[in-house]
Amino acid sequence: MLHLNAFLHADGHHEAAWRHGASSGTDVLDPAHYVHLARTAERGCFDSVFLADNLALSDNARWRAPVAFEPLTLLAALADATTSIGLIGTASTTYQHPFHLARQLSSLDRISGGRAGWNIVTSAYPDEAANFGRDPRPDHEDRYARADEFVHVATRLWDSWQPDAVVTDHESGHWYDPSRVHPLDHRGRYFTVRGPATAPRPPQGRPVLVQAGASPTGIDFAARHADVVFTAAPDLESAVRFREALRRRCEAHGRDPAGVLVLPGLSPALGSDRDDALRRLRELDALVAPEYGLAQLSKLLEQDLSGVDLDAPLPEAVLRERSGNQGMQSRAALVLELAERDRLTVRELILRLAGARGHLVVAGSPVDVADEMQRWFDTGAADGFNVMPPLLPSGLEEFVGEVVPVLQRRELFRTSYPARATLRDLLDGTAGARV
Amino acid sequence: MLHLNAFLHADGHHEAAWRHGASSGTDVLDPAHYVHLARTAERGCFDSVFLADNLALSDNARWRAPVAFEPLTLLAALADATTSIGLIGTASTTYQHPFHLARQLSSLDRISGGRAGWNIVTSAYPDEAANFGRDPRPDHEDRYARADEFVHVATRLWDSWQPDAVVTDHESGHWYDPSRVHPLDHRGRYFTVRGPATAPRPPQGRPVLVQAGASPTGIDFAARHADVVFTAAPDLESAVRFREALRRRCEAHGRDPAGVLVLPGLSPALGSDRDDALRRLRELDALVAPEYGLAQLSKLLEQDLSGVDLDAPLPEAVLRERSGNQGMQSRAALVLELAERDRLTVRELILRLAGARGHLVVAGSPVDVADEMQRWFDTGAADGFNVMPPLLPSGLEEFVGEVVPVLQRRELFRTSYPARATLRDLLDGTAGARV
Repeated sequence: MLHLNAFLHADGHHEAAWRHGASSGTDVLDPAHYVHLARTAERGCFDSVFLADNLALSDNARWRAPVAFEPLTLLAALADATTSIGLIGTASTTYQHPFHLARQLSSLDRISGGRAGWNIVTSAYPDEAANFGRDPRPDHEDRYARADEFVHVATRLWDSWQPDAVVTDHESGHWYDPSRVHPLDHRGRYFTVRGPATAPRPPQGRPVLVQAGASPTGIDFAARHADVVFTAAPDLESAVRFREALRRRCEAHGRDPAGVLVLPGLSPALGSDRDDALRRLRELDALVAPEYGLAQLSKLLEQDLSGVDLDAPLPEAVLRERSGNQGMQSRAALVLELAERDRLTVRELILRLAGARGHLVVAGSPVDVADEMQRWFDTGAADGFNVMPPLLPSGLEEFVGEVVPVLQRRELFRTSYPARATLRDLLDGTAGARV
Repeated sequence: MLHLNAFLHADGHHEAAWRHGASSGTDVLDPAHYVHLARTAERGCFDSVFLADNLALSDNARWRAPVAFEPLTLLAALADATTSIGLIGTASTTYQHPFHLARQLSSLDRISGGRAGWNIVTSAYPDEAANFGRDPRPDHEDRYARADEFVHVATRLWDSWQPDAVVTDHESGHWYDPSRVHPLDHRGRYFTVRGPATAPRPPQGRPVLVQAGASPTGIDFAARHADVVFTAAPDLESAVRFREALRRRCEAHGRDPAGVLVLPGLSPALGSDRDDALRRLRELDALVAPEYGLAQLSKLLEQDLSGVDLDAPLPEAVLRERSGNQGMQSRAALVLELAERDRLTVRELILRLAGARGHLVVAGSPVDVADEMQRWFDTGAADGFNVMPPLLPSGLEEFVGEVVPVLQRRELFRTSYPARATLRDLLDGTAGARV
């Protein structure tokens, strides 16, 4: 069975979403917008919703509707507004502290009855570092070394109360048995944490761990820690290669590759047929601000592109520059390969990225989109998808109303939630075990 | 009019609450317990609910039901479950970072439509420091210096988007006007933060600021920053003195004292009459574990009390030791004064603290409790109360069902919420202005 995650991002993943007539422009400031999105995804039996995050207001942010909520607080509110769907939030190992974050994720897991997930990011950008007094920002390898220790500490905190620690023993007067609660006494390179956690083990034991780094270091990290991997794959062949590489790394670390689900990003550009879908997509593309796309491209590639000819290909020097990027290494490489492979002008490249920042865009009817999803699933390119509608809520409503039923008729997707299932249960495909 | 805050703490403020027959013992792990408490307080038209916090599992925690949720995530869930009541969460300036915390509070304020409050604490205990690699813990003055800079940075982050910054201008393509969003470029002793905030100004501008430190440094801090002060006052006279001292410090800082509300803690020990109330209280006291009380007293006084005679007064040496306490200075002094004034044995002192940790306990009928509240209010000892029921939910249900109506009949308390009021509006006593 497929696994589907709804990536909830402002009023849509298309860069121009807020300028489209379907958006009020400011609904991204209203928690009801997100409650509606989460309930829509739950109506569609999605495994989870997901909130990305960024720890700085980028200089280019003026052109986009912002992420107005901090993920874990918003997910806690969505936990109250939903009953069954998983809730995955992004949080940074570079600028958070594991004691706080492990605690908040444990709290979210308890609030939601076992539905919490953590998308582990290392916060690549210098403008994020500047909000935490880090100049220069920590480099790529350093960030991943810290992430590794961070996950180790968080996991030990979640494990610090044995499952049988709560005894509420009236005789001894002990609410828990102190012999079943263990300090960490962790002293590492980045953190010193005595522990134990302040509260009993969360319902899932630990939240579901999600990762999206696709550099060699990122893949290795995911192979060691992740239950779910979000990835950007421009075509089926590279998706198959990525998934196989990840599964080999899992085996190298002694993990069963079946325990790691790969969900490529998918932007469903829906229409009554392919022509209609492309027409609707072009309508959105026409609203794109090229100066924003150029600034974003500069930021991603860590090269100054101001003044390049929009109607020519990227200069050779830009295409050949591969060294020294301490930011989003793998995404930068993907974008350069895409530009070269399809011989795109800068303007075309900007439009190609406008819809879903380099993720797969499938334009067509609901059946076309379902066909492509099935093809990827059957070929071993994906265990499911991270669904990134260009417009929200309309794109998610259409996907749930028109694509999900096709997948359900083909018995590729669940038609209801198992009772009392945790997010981990949904991802395992096992029956619900939540109490 | 009085202001009422409901201090939601596990299954009650009495130390033995979970051992009482009214508690399941484990309902503190269920978010529904807190949803019920928040809705009960909202039914009673309370200004706010409040969650305390602690960043370590104390060695003595085994005797108490724990705080199983991190405050901000739980309050976000309560925001979805309620409509009008304020939501005050505790967070530490010593172990948090202002960029994260300002963002989470801004997010909570937006999620709740302008109902967020922040109880600012400096985290006094060494076991908290040990979870963040701080040994020795930062001392009292250092913690307050950091708190000062922390609040300064957080406030500048909340102010970094002008109220008119969001323009959603289709012509320029700008969602916000960059000339109305300002970086901080803060470089201080504790923090370097570029800013601006990642999201527009929260609904209240800034969350309501709450403080509870009662040392001279703490009072000065409150006089400069706080909208609400929680305090522990053993009797009316010391409450009057405290409130007057605070108001003078406000004036010294050029603030209108009317802008700072003083809410002493109040444990309502209710019964059909005073004898019945005392009987019920003694029932709870009989469940107290003296070894817990002694360990807590040692921790508070930062003196080793193991082996003291429970049935004699505190040794002179303990009573006279006033220096070197870098923890909860003012609460330690209050407890020592109480022990000396009332010539209590150690066992009696432990029982006196069991109900509400040194806060005022009023035992009597609902009318008795309302009378005492009115007396404090009329005398200028309090602007309202931080209500700390010994048992939860039953003590809060009784207070809302039996005490609140008395206060309402006397026109001392609101009978409904003004439409669209923020927490700040409720505290100001102004009509609602929330949009």
